Amino acid sequence: MEKFMDQNFLLPTLTAKWLYHEVAEEMPIIDYHCHINPQEIAEDRKFSNISEVWLGGDHYKWRQMRFGGIPEELITGDGDPREKFRAFAAVLPRLIGNPMYHWSHLELKRVFGIEEPLTPENADEVYEKCNEALAQYSARELMRKFHVKAACTTDDPCDSLVWHEKIAADPTMEIKVLPAFRPDKAVNIEKEGFADYICRLSGVAGKEICSTEDVIAALCQRVDYFASHGCLCADHGLDYCMYAEPDKAAADKAFQKAMEGNRPARDEADAYKTMVTVACAKKYAEKNWVMQIHFGCLRDNNKPQFAKLGPDTGYDAVNPQSGAEHVAPLLNAFAENQGLPKVILYSLNPCDNTALVSIAGCFQGGGMVGRVQQGSGWWFNDNRTGMRAQLTELANNGMLGCFVGMLTDSRSFLSYTRHEYFRRILCELIGEWVESGQYPNDKKQLAKLVEDICFHNTNEFFGFGV
Amino acid sequence: MEKFMDQNFLLPTLTAKWLYHEVAEEMPIIDYHCHINPQEIAEDRKFSNISEVWLGGDHYKWRQMRFGGIPEELITGDGDPREKFRAFAAVLPRLIGNPMYHWSHLELKRVFGIEEPLTPENADEVYEKCNEALAQYSARELMRKFHVKAACTTDDPCDSLVWHEKIAADPTMEIKVLPAFRPDKAVNIEKEGFADYICRLSGVAGKEICSTEDVIAALCQRVDYFASHGCLCADHGLDYCMYAEPDKAAADKAFQKAMEGNRPARDEADAYKTMVTVACAKKYAEKNWVMQIHFGCLRDNNKPQFAKLGPDTGYDAVNPQSGAEHVAPLLNAFAENQGLPKVILYSLNPCDNTALVSIAGCFQGGGMVGRVQQGSGWWFNDNRTGMRAQLTELANNGMLGCFVGMLTDSRSFLSYTRHEYFRRILCELIGEWVESGQYPNDKKQLAKLVEDICFHNTNEFFGFGV
Amino acid sequence: MEKFMDQNFLLPTLTAKWLYHEVAEEMPIIDYHCHINPQEIAEDRKFSNISEVWLGGDHYKWRQMRFGGIPEELITGDGDPREKFRAFAAVLPRLIGNPMYHWSHLELKRVFGIEEPLTPENADEVYEKCNEALAQYSARELMRKFHVKAACTTDDPCDSLVWHEKIAADPTMEIKVLPAFRPDKAVNIEKEGFADYICRLSGVAGKEICSTEDVIAALCQRVDYFASHGCLCADHGLDYCMYAEPDKAAADKAFQKAMEGNRPARDEADAYKTMVTVACAKKYAEKNWVMQIHFGCLRDNNKPQFAKLGPDTGYDAVNPQSGAEHVAPLLNAFAENQGLPKVILYSLNPCDNTALVSIAGCFQGGGMVGRVQQGSGWWFNDNRTGMRAQLTELANNGMLGCFVGMLTDSRSFLSYTRHEYFRRILCELIGEWVESGQYPNDKKQLAKLVEDICFHNTNEFFGFGV
Repeated sequence: MEKFMDQNFLLPTLTAKWLYHEVAEEMPIIDYHCHINPQEIAEDRKFSNISEVWLGGDHYKWRQMRFGGIPEELITGDGDPREKFRAFAAVLPRLIGNPMYHWSHLELKRVFGIEEPLTPENADEVYEKCNEALAQYSARELMRKFHVKAACTTDDPCDSLVWHEKIAADPTMEIKVLPAFRPDKAVNIEKEGFADYICRLSGVAGKEICSTEDVIAALCQRVDYFASHGCLCADHGLDYCMYAEPDKAAADKAFQKAMEGNRPARDEADAYKTMVTVACAKKYAEKNWVMQIHFGCLRDNNKPQFAKLGPDTGYDAVNPQSGAEHVAPLLNAFAENQGLPKVILYSLNPCDNTALVSIAGCFQGGGMVGRVQQGSGWWFNDNRTGMRAQLTELANNGMLGCFVGMLTDSRSFLSYTRHEYFRRILCELIGEWVESGQYPNDKKQLAKLVEDICFHNTNEFFGFGV
Repeated sequence: MEKFMDQNFLLPTLTAKWLYHEVAEEMPIIDYHCHINPQEIAEDRKFSNISEVWLGGDHYKWRQMRFGGIPEELITGDGDPREKFRAFAAVLPRLIGNPMYHWSHLELKRVFGIEEPLTPENADEVYEKCNEALAQYSARELMRKFHVKAACTTDDPCDSLVWHEKIAADPTMEIKVLPAFRPDKAVNIEKEGFADYICRLSGVAGKEICSTEDVIAALCQRVDYFASHGCLCADHGLDYCMYAEPDKAAADKAFQKAMEGNRPARDEADAYKTMVTVACAKKYAEKNWVMQIHFGCLRDNNKPQFAKLGPDTGYDAVNPQSGAEHVAPLLNAFAENQGLPKVILYSLNPCDNTALVSIAGCFQGGGMVGRVQQGSGWWFNDNRTGMRAQLTELANNGMLGCFVGMLTDSRSFLSYTRHEYFRRILCELIGEWVESGQYPNDKKQLAKLVEDICFHNTNEFFGFGV
Repeated sequence: MEKFMDQNFLLPTLTAKWLYHEVAEEMPIIDYHCHINPQEIAEDRKFSNISEVWLGGDHYKWRQMRFGGIPEELITGDGDPREKFRAFAAVLPRLIGNPMYHWSHLELKRVFGIEEPLTPENADEVYEKCNEALAQYSARELMRKFHVKAACTTDDPCDSLVWHEKIAADPTMEIKVLPAFRPDKAVNIEKEGFADYICRLSGVAGKEICSTEDVIAALCQRVDYFASHGCLCADHGLDYCMYAEPDKAAADKAFQKAMEGNRPARDEADAYKTMVTVACAKKYAEKNWVMQIHFGCLRDNNKPQFAKLGPDTGYDAVNPQSGAEHVAPLLNAFAENQGLPKVILYSLNPCDNTALVSIAGCFQGGGMVGRVQQGSGWWFNDNRTGMRAQLTELANNGMLGCFVGMLTDSRSFLSYTRHEYFRRILCELIGEWVESGQYPNDKKQLAKLVEDICFHNTNEFFGFGV
């Protein structure tokens, strides 16, 4: 019997242990996709209590507390921080097999030095200890503790990037913190608030926006602005991947309807979204950026709760109709438009794994290594079985050796432990293959593979230069 | 090498062995969903031979015999019972890896005391022994042997529940046997026989039925009737999960067409089905019932055979278009109508696992624990890999600790061994997690988790009070 | 730690070792589906260098080289053969977990006697050794080396089968090499070149083709011609499985449009394809042929590359909309038309596994064993996890004991090692079941199961008589 989450957690073989402890563990982190607020880095934020850090904005935890029957007051309400912590501790033991069980304990161990499992019995004691430890940390100190060399936030095209400017200008900050371009509000024309957003974009870009082409022109201008701030990548979030044959008239019809506050028909909306997405891709290709595409999310499913709590509060789910059938035509449209950038594809639906990797294989070339690839297990797949499924499929039909690996996708400075979680799982899987004779026990080559996936592939693919 | 299906069957780790033998094995059973005929319990039926019990009504076995090339005469025909048993014994060895191989041997061991594998060679001997043993058992004795404390049958809204009344009135019967409300014939408007059924429902409810609202009123009256007989749950079986925006006119159009013997258009049928389902859900919520929804089955696929043998004879399959994309809108309609009951979701398509659990997570709350949850591996998923996949996904994105666990879904009194099968698989999985350091080796907490999933969660979720 | 790919590769248990080495290893091969050119067998072709054999026509390898950033010149271009070999050796170590890593080394070991892993360092040395060894082999000698007793090529209905006639007439050739009937160009009416093909078919069949029924008549005539050359099976390749209610007028409308060089509407095309497919099935049933149906492939996804390189150059992928929902209606149409042949179903989308096996279970009978079954993991599923998933699902819901097993689907005489790969994986899985007590350790029965799946089931199902 292995001890609970000790140093050999998820490392059952000698090869796995060696690979993790001698190779992966000390590799620096490039967290190329996260949702941290750059202001918190610029101001080097400190934290007042563990409930604020852990429970304040984490809708993953909120969902689990709701499963456990906790009243909303102690979840998103104005309950006492200590009571909220107790409530979380009360549901945690029932989360056997859940990645949150591991994430929580990795954070308790690595940041707060707490080695015993959190239970209802020791909740108060842990709460005190965490708050004490927390007082010593700041945002940047947490990043340094985890050897973060570079990180990309997620930024709206209208953003002034003022906090990024401050970070870049700060001589005491050695970690590269870059913006990432996320034009969802300009793309997802069917969502509420589109017209207002376009007005805002028009103001920021300093040009009138009266058509789909105007939207594209404004976005391209903002891409240039982001590039001048060091940006290396974009991210497109789509409820479903869409593709429509080029049809400027349909796209503009959708645009006019949406600007008048009406919801465009789905085929018109798809025409608009495809046209903007294809144009963005071409611009990214010119900039040599990486384009991430996240698709397949059903959002805000519980409307009564959405009315109370707003978006990103734990009411999203996997879309059984993720639109994976449109990925190949969309990428082909990029290629035919001579604007196929480096692409990372993420579907929220794990059923898409094999299809996605096989589609990625159709869009390689141009002297780039792993030009189009499937990204690491996202959200509801960001767990041991989801990551193993993604890694295995990537190995089966793609090329695991050129994988750009892990990202946190997180709002929290504690989440860098997820890179540890990923690395352990990677070493576990490679260890299985080696020890069962499926890959040679060539330590130099194995170390290279793991170092590449943990760090070098990302550094080179994005061009971080760290 | 482990012995074939000995006491440590599927229990490779010490933790698994301990959990099963010290905790799970002796827990009583609540079989909250089965298809046993309550008359057989009321009359405490006895059985004449093993072929009748095993092969008489089990379309799972019929399918396997057909795979093996057995002529239909020895499957559903009037072949000699002994010859049928021999035919089944002849195909069994080729069923390596099939759950029927395990179910059959668990039944032979636990009920008939037969320890050796059934083969063509010993078929006659086993046949005799089983028939001898069978003479000692009755329906109730089999239920007692397996520590069944409560069971729910599956009953039509038109049913008088007379057999349930007899069981309830019988002072010699200590096991709680309750009806479950299954209004499929009133919901599935596209099926043959709808009009006749509505006439019958009208007669039973004692009111004219001329519209969708009349159907709902009649069903609600029958819910009250079922509730007065102790009913705690309903079950809706849908070929595909549907959702349509509220449209009373479309629903009534479908109703009129169907009453005239015509098949309504799919969108009209969906409007009708959605309207009735949403109304039922609200009624169940008022009664504090659990609503089960089984969807994703392609039925009666082989029409020449259907013409000969009728429904439920082994010609059903997984629906690749299960309608999982409509589950979230449907549950949202329940919530917006202020009528979201406790719900258990089952899709026949295992590709829906991640989506379903993630959707369930959007509809928690109201102080209930695990208010909406995915049910145990159903039918073509009721096997070791299917159950492990469901348990793992529930752990990954739901809360395994509040799972209501296993049900037999069976027509046979021998099937309680499937609870044993499930419990072994549950203990196997938890044992793996504990022994690999993924969960603390806290025996008290582990025992609580297993006891809850085997019994207490069901008892509390449904309110059996046993 | 197991040695890399030694004699016990993928055989971790004693049972697996015994089953493979004492039972499976020496069983002969029937390769019932491949893409070898029969001319190469008739002329007993010899090979000039390893790059020609390995890299000359293998789009699997091309895809992997593209992932690795190799320029197209060294993939499909006119680069130097040695440079191409070096380029492949350079990417190979990054293919950890990829079946190509295993296929390549199995071929190096079994055919060329090279035991060390291929790396950039030893690439030149291996290149020389392979070329030396290759000089000793011919097509037939390679077939003999792997104990191939029978093989089916893939042939167009218009083919004269002249090379098959030569092979059959050759007294020095003891291996049964049969044609297989692949009428894709006459079925897939939406593809370019349909009209030209129909003209060719008309010429070969010696009858005018003016309607769907004429197409069917011509195909039936060619079936008779193929049957007279010993053919035992057909294969239908469909981008998606289709089904349309019988509609001769719609089918003929599609036919007329296509003959005029226009693309028919999808519903008309489906009517045509269904009508032809149902008629073919009936003809096959009359001939007692096996009908293979391969569906779910998105082809030629990268149009700029397709324009340069043409079809089958590594730009195909899994179709997320494989049409699995039409499989049951299509098979039912066969049955209602009294023309349900023996069928092997292959979907490129692994999400279809459970549905396909459950659908196959609805179409058994007629005294045949495993009349309709799911085929072995195809293309993007032809790897260890894909094969285990298929075998497990077949065991769960079908009857593994009657499975017809492995085929190479290959253009290369080196690929017979894939039967070894499959057999090791089969023995690994059965070994797990036996050693964990899930199946009795009955050596006679286990040997029978493995012999059947490796050879006898195929021999009997197709009627090879070898």
